[in-house]
Amino acid sequence: MSDVKRVVIVGGGFAGLNAAKKLSRSRGVSVTLIDRRNHHLFQPLLYQVAMAGLSPADIAAPIRSILSDSHNVRVVQGAMTGADLDQNVLHTDFGDVPYDYLVLACGAGHSYFGHPEWEQYAPGLKTIEQATEIRRRVLTAFEQAERSTNTTEQKRLLTFIVIGGGPTGVELAGAIGEMSRYTLARDFRSIDATLARVLLIEAGPHILPMFSPKLTHRAMRDLESLGVQVWTSSMVTNVDAQGVEVGDERVRAATVLWAAGVEASPLGRQLGVETDRQGRIIVGEDLSLPNHPNVFVAGDQAHAVGESGKPLPGVAPVAMQQGRYVAETILRDLTGGTRVPFRYHDKGQMATIGRSRAIAETKGFKLTGFFAWIAWLLVHVYYLTGFRNRFFVVLNWAWSYLSFRKGARLIVDKEWRSNP
Amino acid sequence: MSDVKRVVIVGGGFAGLNAAKKLSRSRGVSVTLIDRRNHHLFQPLLYQVAMAGLSPADIAAPIRSILSDSHNVRVVQGAMTGADLDQNVLHTDFGDVPYDYLVLACGAGHSYFGHPEWEQYAPGLKTIEQATEIRRRVLTAFEQAERSTNTTEQKRLLTFIVIGGGPTGVELAGAIGEMSRYTLARDFRSIDATLARVLLIEAGPHILPMFSPKLTHRAMRDLESLGVQVWTSSMVTNVDAQGVEVGDERVRAATVLWAAGVEASPLGRQLGVETDRQGRIIVGEDLSLPNHPNVFVAGDQAHAVGESGKPLPGVAPVAMQQGRYVAETILRDLTGGTRVPFRYHDKGQMATIGRSRAIAETKGFKLTGFFAWIAWLLVHVYYLTGFRNRFFVVLNWAWSYLSFRKGARLIVDKEWRSNP
Repeated sequence: MSDVKRVVIVGGGFAGLNAAKKLSRSRGVSVTLIDRRNHHLFQPLLYQVAMAGLSPADIAAPIRSILSDSHNVRVVQGAMTGADLDQNVLHTDFGDVPYDYLVLACGAGHSYFGHPEWEQYAPGLKTIEQATEIRRRVLTAFEQAERSTNTTEQKRLLTFIVIGGGPTGVELAGAIGEMSRYTLARDFRSIDATLARVLLIEAGPHILPMFSPKLTHRAMRDLESLGVQVWTSSMVTNVDAQGVEVGDERVRAATVLWAAGVEASPLGRQLGVETDRQGRIIVGEDLSLPNHPNVFVAGDQAHAVGESGKPLPGVAPVAMQQGRYVAETILRDLTGGTRVPFRYHDKGQMATIGRSRAIAETKGFKLTGFFAWIAWLLVHVYYLTGFRNRFFVVLNWAWSYLSFRKGARLIVDKEWRSNP
Repeated sequence: MSDVKRVVIVGGGFAGLNAAKKLSRSRGVSVTLIDRRNHHLFQPLLYQVAMAGLSPADIAAPIRSILSDSHNVRVVQGAMTGADLDQNVLHTDFGDVPYDYLVLACGAGHSYFGHPEWEQYAPGLKTIEQATEIRRRVLTAFEQAERSTNTTEQKRLLTFIVIGGGPTGVELAGAIGEMSRYTLARDFRSIDATLARVLLIEAGPHILPMFSPKLTHRAMRDLESLGVQVWTSSMVTNVDAQGVEVGDERVRAATVLWAAGVEASPLGRQLGVETDRQGRIIVGEDLSLPNHPNVFVAGDQAHAVGESGKPLPGVAPVAMQQGRYVAETILRDLTGGTRVPFRYHDKGQMATIGRSRAIAETKGFKLTGFFAWIAWLLVHVYYLTGFRNRFFVVLNWAWSYLSFRKGARLIVDKEWRSNP
C-alpha cells in the first residue's frame, strides 16, 4: 500500500516513545524508531541509581521490548548523523532512511558553559553510564577515607560538592546527606561517615526557582537537616581535580557533581535550522519546523513557546505531552483535518529531598514533608514504564525505607579485562 | 590487650567472607579483611547477569555491609602487593599490615592457555564487569543483526560460541539458546532471533565430566532442545575478531565467550611458595603453608588434596567450608588445642541448562529436568548472602519464568563522558 506514510522518530526518550506508542494503533503509518541506546530511561529516577538505591535495570527497559506488540513499529539501534530536509531523507550510521514525517526527539545533554574540560572532574546525570560513574566516585571516596591516615586528606575525601540547585542538584545533595547519615554510618570503623560535608552551590539567588518562595525555603531547611550546606548566589569559576573555585574561595573536594547547565543535542545546529542559545530547535505552535511542516521536534530538543510566552521547560511531562501531540497531528493530517496548536497542561511540579521529604505544588496547592514525599512516590511509580519496573521499584523503596539500607552499593570498574 | 591476635584475610569471596564471619564472634582476635572490590559476589549466579536475567546488585553486596555487625572486623578496599612471610607482614597499596595469622583467599581468574591476546575476543565470567561486557556483546549482536541487510553478516552476528563445557559454559550456552528462542523472538522485525546458532565447544570427550555419563547425556539432549550444538573432543586452536579455529575448521562468529581454563591469582607465585601448574598454592592438610603454620590458603587459590588423593575442585562449597575451617583452626590454636585435618563434605553437584531444566547428583542419587531445576533454585537462593538479595532474586526469577522476559536487557557503554 503506497499510502502508508513512513514516520521516522529519532530518540526513544519520553517524547519519542510516547509518539511511537500513539502511532502504534494506526494502520495508516509505518514507524521506525531510531535510538543510539537499546533502552528507554526513566530519567526522573536516575539520581537513585547514582545514589545506590536502585539498579539501572529498575528504571530502564529495552525500547523494542516496550514496543514489541506494536507491529507497525520497527526499532533500530543506531545514530542519526544528519538529514536532508528538502529531500525527506535522514542520514544514519546504518544508511539513508527516507521518510514522509520526521520526529526529532534527541533530548539534551549537559552544558559546562564553555568549559568542556570540567566534565571529567564533575560528571553530570543524564545516562546510566554517568549514574554508575557518580555512584563509583561517591562510594570510592568513602572507601578511600576509611583507608586514609591523613586527616586533611580524609576531609577532602568526605567533601561532596553538587553544582546546580535545580531539582536534580537538590535530589543528589539530599541523597548524599541521607546516605552518609543513615546508610553508611554503621559500616565504617575509622571514619565517621556522618561528618561528610555536602555543599550545594547555586549561581542564582534561590534553589528550585520554579517553586514558590515558601516551598523553596522549606526545601532549604530540609536539606540543612540532612547536613547539606546551601550556597546561593555563588558562581563556580573553576573545577579541577582538587575541587572547585567560587570566586576567590577554593573548596577542596574529591567528588564534584554537575547539575547546572543543559544543552540540547548538537544535531539541531547541524541541520541548518534556527536554534536558541541552548541549541534547542525553534518550532511553531504545532511543533513543526517553519518551512517543513512534516518535520516535528519534541521534548528537550524543542524550543516551543508556552502560553506565558516563555519557552516550555525541559521536563518529562512536556516531553510526553508533545510526543503524543505530534502523533495525533500526523494522524489528523492523514484524515485531512486541520492542525490545532500544542497546549501544555501543567499538572504542577515536585522535588524530593532525601528520605521521606519532598515539596509539591499544583495549581496553587502546596504540599511539604512526608505527604509530599508520598505524592512524589505515587506519581513516579505510576509513570514508570512497564509493570515489572514499577513493581520492583516499589519493593526496593519499601525495603530501603524500612531498613535504612541501599540495595545497589556496588563500585564497578570501567575495565573488564584482567590484563588490559 | 596484647593477646588479641591480629588476623588478616585477603579476599572477600566465599572463603574469606566465611572465615571473617566465623571469627566475628570471638574476642580473642581482631580481623582485617582486604579486598580490591567493595563487594562480595555470588559467583554461581553471575551467568544470569551476563544473560540479562538479573542485575549486578541482585547477586552482590558490599562486604562492609555484610560484616557491619561484626565489630572486631575491619574491612578495607585495597590490594595486596606481596608479603614477607618470615616477618609476618603483608604489603598492600595502602601500606604494610603486620599480622599474627594470614589467610590468603584471593581466588582465581581465567587461563587462556598461554594466549592472553584471546581475552579481548572471548571474555570470561569471573567479575561483574565481565558479566556486563558479555551482556553488552550478546545483546549488541542481535541489535546489529536487526540493522544488517547482508545475510552473511547476519549469520556471523547470530552465531554465538561458548568455549568450555563445564558448568559455566553449559549455563551460558543454554541461556543464550533460551534467550533467542523465547525472550527475544517477538521483539525483532527483520531477523528471526530463533535462528541464532549457539555452539558449545569442549576439548575433552564429554561436557560436565564431573557428572555421571547418564546425566551428561541428558544435559546434552537438553542443550540440543534449546538449539545448542555441542562439539566435544574439539580443541580450539585460535580465537580472533572473526571467530574461532578448531583445527582446520574456522567458525565465523561475532560473539565468543570463554569458560575453559582457570588460573589462581598470580599473587601465589610471587610469594616464593610452592604452587601447582594452575598457580594454586600447595598447602598441608590443615590448609597452612608447610613452613608457616600461621599462614593459611583457602578457596580457589589453594591446592588442597581431598580424600580421593586428587586436588579439591574450585567450587563454592569447598571455599565456604575451607574458610570456616581456617577460622576454627585459628580459634583452636588460641585455646591451645591441636589442629585436625580439613575434610571436605561433598554434598553433591548440580548444573542448570536454561529455563526449568537442570541435572543434580548427590551421593549416587540423581535428579534431572524440572525437579532438578527446582532443587538447583532452592539451593542457590538459600546460599545467596543476605535477606534482601535472596528475596529480590526469587521475585525476579518468578517474574522471568512467568513472563518469558528478561529484566535486565541493558546495553551499557564503557564510556560515561559525552565528549571523551
